[in-house]
Amino acid sequence: MLVASAKSDSPSAERVALATQELKSTLDHKIVTNAVIRSQHANVTTYLPNEPADVVVFAETVADVQQAVRICAAHKVPVIPWGAGTSLEGQVNAPFGGVCIDLSRMNRIVAVNSEDLDCVIEPGVTRKRLNEELRDQGLFFPIDPGADASLGGMVSTRASGTNAVRYGTMKDNVLSLDVVTPSGELITTATRARKSSAGYDLTRLYVGAEGTLGIVTGITLKLYGIPEAISAAVCPFPSIEAACNAVIMTIQCGIPVARIELLDEVQVRASNAYAKLALAETPTLFLEFHGTEASVHEQADRFGTIAAEFGGGPAAFAVKPEERTKLWQARHDAYWSALPLRPGAKAVATDVCVPISRLAECVMETKRDIEEMGLVAPIVGHVGDGNFHTTLMVDHDDPADVEKAHHYMKRLVARALAMGGTCTGEHGIGQGKMGYMAAEHGEAALDVMRAIKRTLDPDNIMNPGKIVAI
Amino acid sequence: MLVASAKSDSPSAERVALATQELKSTLDHKIVTNAVIRSQHANVTTYLPNEPADVVVFAETVADVQQAVRICAAHKVPVIPWGAGTSLEGQVNAPFGGVCIDLSRMNRIVAVNSEDLDCVIEPGVTRKRLNEELRDQGLFFPIDPGADASLGGMVSTRASGTNAVRYGTMKDNVLSLDVVTPSGELITTATRARKSSAGYDLTRLYVGAEGTLGIVTGITLKLYGIPEAISAAVCPFPSIEAACNAVIMTIQCGIPVARIELLDEVQVRASNAYAKLALAETPTLFLEFHGTEASVHEQADRFGTIAAEFGGGPAAFAVKPEERTKLWQARHDAYWSALPLRPGAKAVATDVCVPISRLAECVMETKRDIEEMGLVAPIVGHVGDGNFHTTLMVDHDDPADVEKAHHYMKRLVARALAMGGTCTGEHGIGQGKMGYMAAEHGEAALDVMRAIKRTLDPDNIMNPGKIVAI
Repeated sequence: MLVASAKSDSPSAERVALATQELKSTLDHKIVTNAVIRSQHANVTTYLPNEPADVVVFAETVADVQQAVRICAAHKVPVIPWGAGTSLEGQVNAPFGGVCIDLSRMNRIVAVNSEDLDCVIEPGVTRKRLNEELRDQGLFFPIDPGADASLGGMVSTRASGTNAVRYGTMKDNVLSLDVVTPSGELITTATRARKSSAGYDLTRLYVGAEGTLGIVTGITLKLYGIPEAISAAVCPFPSIEAACNAVIMTIQCGIPVARIELLDEVQVRASNAYAKLALAETPTLFLEFHGTEASVHEQADRFGTIAAEFGGGPAAFAVKPEERTKLWQARHDAYWSALPLRPGAKAVATDVCVPISRLAECVMETKRDIEEMGLVAPIVGHVGDGNFHTTLMVDHDDPADVEKAHHYMKRLVARALAMGGTCTGEHGIGQGKMGYMAAEHGEAALDVMRAIKRTLDPDNIMNPGKIVAI
Repeated sequence: MLVASAKSDSPSAERVALATQELKSTLDHKIVTNAVIRSQHANVTTYLPNEPADVVVFAETVADVQQAVRICAAHKVPVIPWGAGTSLEGQVNAPFGGVCIDLSRMNRIVAVNSEDLDCVIEPGVTRKRLNEELRDQGLFFPIDPGADASLGGMVSTRASGTNAVRYGTMKDNVLSLDVVTPSGELITTATRARKSSAGYDLTRLYVGAEGTLGIVTGITLKLYGIPEAISAAVCPFPSIEAACNAVIMTIQCGIPVARIELLDEVQVRASNAYAKLALAETPTLFLEFHGTEASVHEQADRFGTIAAEFGGGPAAFAVKPEERTKLWQARHDAYWSALPLRPGAKAVATDVCVPISRLAECVMETKRDIEEMGLVAPIVGHVGDGNFHTTLMVDHDDPADVEKAHHYMKRLVARALAMGGTCTGEHGIGQGKMGYMAAEHGEAALDVMRAIKRTLDPDNIMNPGKIVAI
């Protein structure tokens, strides 16, 4: 680097010490260096090693974030943004140390513009709290990754989840972002207009960038009216293939399902045990329909006809809110329900996504792999989008088991890529999937990503060691 | 530039001559230097001066595009991509000369994946032809900017139009792009998976980049099943405000209108004359409902109730395809219908977009301006998105009239920005709106755009003089 100053030649520890001293002198009581706190801020719920930052800054304002970033920039010290710690690919780890900026105290709902169906919030607001605050106004924010993630984190991993088949992903539901750049400047990526053709789409550049290009400090989200009628359904199928074919037909017929989720028979068994359900232990779809009373009835009827064509059904409907909540809680608890299947092992959530025409084939080949390799790995999927997860149980104390898990995951990604799919539908790259980037994108496209990272963050201080190495 | 060779110090004409010679020796009969052809490829239907390229290359394959770009890159000669010539802000002009790459012969529909509801096409395919080819399979591509634009052009300007309120814009309907970079390399921005969190969103970076970062040579689009039932309606209102308030209520109630378009009374009068309609000459909404028979009826009923609440209606319905076609043709011909309102003048289409809560106010203030300045400028709007156009009639031979038009347009953009809107909802920046970029985005965000442009196109050869100056 031609611009390298003396500081970047200093040992990392010395630069961190200088930065910490400045942070303490300016941000004072918002700074924590306690080992437990630092460790809690690194890498929860993943198979990756815990790599804590040197300092945690509990930012309360945009100015705090700017101040912290400016100090880190001056000393070329890494900055790792943190929301709720629910990421799954090591996005919050600090492999080169540095300063973790905890944004959970920046949790104000700044404005709800009900006429415009949008809201302006800070990044630390979590999904559940946002919906609690919106309910009284008859509004909701649909994106639902299961975990009670922060919206800043959901922006940064381009999260989606069970509702994406109807409402899209974070990419489709962010109108604008405030971002603190690696030099500490504050930019706004767009206006509140519903659409714009005014230059490069900076909003979509930062959505999914996992904090490697800047820190999201403000978010304008699209909102939706709470549907007049909601009906959920559980529909058993004789096979994975039959269930997937029913999904394809449902989407092709334009039935606007709000959710259409697959659980394989292993997952159904686990959920029966964990959530005290009494479902038939066969591949099963969980569905939800949103609309007017009449439309929800019509959608459910049409789906029932399609399910029957593929040997599925009859569907059991859950119309009461508490029944629906129980059902979706069971679906969201898939991760936890898998844990008792192999006591002592930890769960690793995989996350591929393929064109829907290849979904049945991909799921079935994956199941064959699971059986042949003797693994425990129930399957759940946002099948309307072609996205599915296996909850792989791994004994981290057994090197052979870890090796087998890696072998399985590599084969899974290779299978998805060969079918025209992606190595991650919604969890992101983080540290865990960097090794697949070249295979998915090709070196030339990856060079474009590297060029963007290099030009916007020339000192590589923003969440380094994630997405792309430069 | 450290990498600058002797070539970049040569006069522009010399570099163009060398590039032309090489183009002729390799691409032979695909090269045209005829003045009429060059002029036809620059700046149609806008108020900007015609600035032709020095050479037009009629590319037939991706390899042709790569070859042409490599030659231009070697000689640091500008490259201007061309699709159908329907852009409105000078996107196809060549202010610094150079090589226009005409992509209209790259018009193959490579694959229609009906199970996945997507297709792979070349950039020269036009909107109408795509839908003709899809019809037999019961599929359609909804984005409809009115003009029969090429899909490559629609990608590049982030086009939308009448259907965006239901189906989104090009940003929401492109799954992946093939792009020839400024050095002539070919990249693919994404897989055919419906969603992905695998790194920076290169697809959305090139959507709306107007060819300033690379040339789109392949497009994977989302498709939709042709709705079972379609019904169009025309609904008169006593005032602009009443019409806008009915639109807000319709959107808030979650009625999934496929189209909801405003015509002010001046436009209705013009359309009556041009398209031989017999509508009441008052602010009017044109609507379209898509769904099942039952759902379309229910949507129309609910809209009727809302319209009545605001003093509008009764709505007249057009259910037969030929009636609907006549109606939407009249809407699409708004531009042409305005021409007879001021013989000798030319039409300039303006294009602001504001949060929908400000729409009535913005349209009414704009109408007041039009009246007070003595302008002729009917108004049409994609009001479900808060986007509206005035078709401003300007006598280009009268400097005072041109000056007045510029004054009006500046006031219009300033008004939209002050209301939290954008200077362009769908036409793009091109040359015409570069002057508003700093006011809309701020210098720091504009610096991010400039940095991206500079790093991906360091010699500034890709459509220079558009979007951002570097």
